[in-house]
Amino acid sequence: MFTDLADFHQWLAQRHEANEYRVTPAPLNRLDGWAADPVTGDLHHSSGRFFAVHGLDVTGSQREVGHWQQPIINQPEHGVLGILVKEFDGVPHCLLQAKMEPGNVNTLQLSPTVQATRSNYTRVHRGRAVPYLELFIARGRGRPLADALQSEQGSWFLAKRNRNVIIRIDDDIPVLDDFCWLSLDQIGHLLKVHDLVNMDTRTVLSHLPDALLPAGDRFRGTPAHPLPELLNWLTHHKTMDRTVRRAVPLAKTEGWRMTDEELRHEHDRYFRVIGVDVQAQNREVASWSQPMLAPCGEGVIAFVVRRIDGVPHVLVQARAEAGTPDGVEIAPTVQCSPGNYAHLATGLRPRYLDTVLSAPPRRILFDVVHSEEGGRFYHARNRYRAVEVPDDFRVDVPDGFHWATPGQLAQVNHYGGLLNVEVRNLLTCMGFIA
Amino acid sequence: MFTDLADFHQWLAQRHEANEYRVTPAPLNRLDGWAADPVTGDLHHSSGRFFAVHGLDVTGSQREVGHWQQPIINQPEHGVLGILVKEFDGVPHCLLQAKMEPGNVNTLQLSPTVQATRSNYTRVHRGRAVPYLELFIARGRGRPLADALQSEQGSWFLAKRNRNVIIRIDDDIPVLDDFCWLSLDQIGHLLKVHDLVNMDTRTVLSHLPDALLPAGDRFRGTPAHPLPELLNWLTHHKTMDRTVRRAVPLAKTEGWRMTDEELRHEHDRYFRVIGVDVQAQNREVASWSQPMLAPCGEGVIAFVVRRIDGVPHVLVQARAEAGTPDGVEIAPTVQCSPGNYAHLATGLRPRYLDTVLSAPPRRILFDVVHSEEGGRFYHARNRYRAVEVPDDFRVDVPDGFHWATPGQLAQVNHYGGLLNVEVRNLLTCMGFIA
Repeated sequence: MFTDLADFHQWLAQRHEANEYRVTPAPLNRLDGWAADPVTGDLHHSSGRFFAVHGLDVTGSQREVGHWQQPIINQPEHGVLGILVKEFDGVPHCLLQAKMEPGNVNTLQLSPTVQATRSNYTRVHRGRAVPYLELFIARGRGRPLADALQSEQGSWFLAKRNRNVIIRIDDDIPVLDDFCWLSLDQIGHLLKVHDLVNMDTRTVLSHLPDALLPAGDRFRGTPAHPLPELLNWLTHHKTMDRTVRRAVPLAKTEGWRMTDEELRHEHDRYFRVIGVDVQAQNREVASWSQPMLAPCGEGVIAFVVRRIDGVPHVLVQARAEAGTPDGVEIAPTVQCSPGNYAHLATGLRPRYLDTVLSAPPRRILFDVVHSEEGGRFYHARNRYRAVEVPDDFRVDVPDGFHWATPGQLAQVNHYGGLLNVEVRNLLTCMGFIA
Repeated sequence: MFTDLADFHQWLAQRHEANEYRVTPAPLNRLDGWAADPVTGDLHHSSGRFFAVHGLDVTGSQREVGHWQQPIINQPEHGVLGILVKEFDGVPHCLLQAKMEPGNVNTLQLSPTVQATRSNYTRVHRGRAVPYLELFIARGRGRPLADALQSEQGSWFLAKRNRNVIIRIDDDIPVLDDFCWLSLDQIGHLLKVHDLVNMDTRTVLSHLPDALLPAGDRFRGTPAHPLPELLNWLTHHKTMDRTVRRAVPLAKTEGWRMTDEELRHEHDRYFRVIGVDVQAQNREVASWSQPMLAPCGEGVIAFVVRRIDGVPHVLVQARAEAGTPDGVEIAPTVQCSPGNYAHLATGLRPRYLDTVLSAPPRRILFDVVHSEEGGRFYHARNRYRAVEVPDDFRVDVPDGFHWATPGQLAQVNHYGGLLNVEVRNLLTCMGFIA
């Protein structure tokens, strides 16, 4: 435990020095253990496990563009993202880990106690066991505070879901190298630092009861729309959505070009699929190779926040993405990579993007750049921002949008599959960054 | 409105006489508008709409039998099941409809205000408009009390889901022929009558707030296991489930025989797929033909109820069926057709079946035979029963089972996709049958 966050940063620097890591870009067509299917061009691991990269055709979307094709990561198995919580002197702390991921811009970020794909924990790679995993998958050790199957980035993953689990323990457990206990207040401060608290930690933290959160007062107050209205709006959009997703051979994905080195969009938009060779001394296996998805440009993930009768509400949208597991989920006010829209007519610019980008500093509740999951995404960064708009901002919003209190989103979040990963990440920032 | 239920029964008899209905069994291979695919044998409507009958191969199941093949109904579109609620003299009433369905043993049962497949309401059959539908699909008329996408019979439907919607209105609306307002107390009494309140009504009613329910006191009291434990148990079983579902040609479905007349299992177990010709004067179209699934034998759908620290709890199971949309859902203590297990070893008899069948009368909270949806299922009847077991019944239950209060199930039910249709139907009986 750290009495001062300066000690934490010193510890993190030591963890950095104590281990050796190297991530080297490598041609996609010569990655050890990976091969393109001779017919479809789809990328697979020789074991048939881990994940694959396929092509996907999307039609009928209500989004800015109604039809497109794209590569997508297919990883149908459910992994476990778990955080242990324990009180020290009455103050709840989370056990987090300084973990290297090949896609991290800064090598080490704070991961959950456990971040394991099913391949990890069934030990496909014959590596070391995942520490603390048995506390999450064997029932009856500790008290569960949350456990929900949640989706991840719908524009990059096909129907990917991970278990988000929080277990409260009373017993003392050994703290291994690379792990540390941090209080929720400390995590709140660390969430203001760019690229430090990783995506898996942020999504799991969105399930903590609001009574424990440093900025939990933002979660309280009477909602303008009772919960059944929010669910009615969401179910309406789920049932009215006409998005059709169809697998296509990766080699035939319209608008995408495979070179020896990488797979890229013909106009250098959206993302590239690249290869990396990885050496990491303290991971389950010491070296491996893998494809990664490298986004083109930084994204924006933002809430418009407005007080309605004095109670803070966030503006959310019902959104269908390429890989959304159940068609439509609740998404933030804004979720986009602005560069991908630059070629479109002004009217197709994402709604409310200008509102959140042009807000004066005094109206910005938080503004921090966080990384997306470094195990699949290479240098994937998004600006997480919440902007409080004045009372003359229209309460009456377009049909695909709805006002909700952060408390309502937290309530809905316990059941899994209703909030997308971007809105869960913002919700964590809302609850932790005071 | 009826001051006395005798008046209701008289009205129902009049509705019966006022309309003419005829359901005639017809050979499956000569149904108007339907044809078997020449390659697979799958049954389709010539429009490509409504529904189809496919073959399904199921492996990896944790159920009594680990591998099987079966026909299954494929109806991927979401329909709407909606009930209007309105207070008269401060007493909430539901608008229900006496509706003919070809599979009903008694022709007319009480359907929800609206019971429309997407084909219905987009008018594929070019029939009459569905009355009151606009109150459910246009948002902003009335106040939603519930709206959830819910699964239906997982052993007969492939990933079928319908919207379950309750809308509260204040305005007066015209009451059309075949419709009537019934108070919740009256519905409670009618739920004790065999084959009267249809499945669609029962599933929608499971979403009413417990404060309104005639037997809502059963929903209150402190649960032995807080909600996060219940969700942890469910998510554990969802992620550990290894059931694999694979489409197979209907003509090649192992163990099933297609005759000119019908499709049946070689040992006359499970169900048959039959054809019917239908004439109904007051439906959207006056006559049509369709395949129907006709179960072999009556089923049992039951709760074991036990007081824990004085609070009523029901025993539920985590259950994967052939067509469960998201792998595993919460199911009742017992859900089976006992005849289908008669050929298996005693150890493979469904757990707790004998407990619920052999209970002495004084321990039976309710026991009533209800019909499943008469639009797809022909004479499909289940005994719905709840049995209160004494305090020496073990609280410690096998891993796939869990104790929950009816109030917890009602809470979870608002989000859709967590409770299967059988447990929702039992929950309605628990809340209404005082």
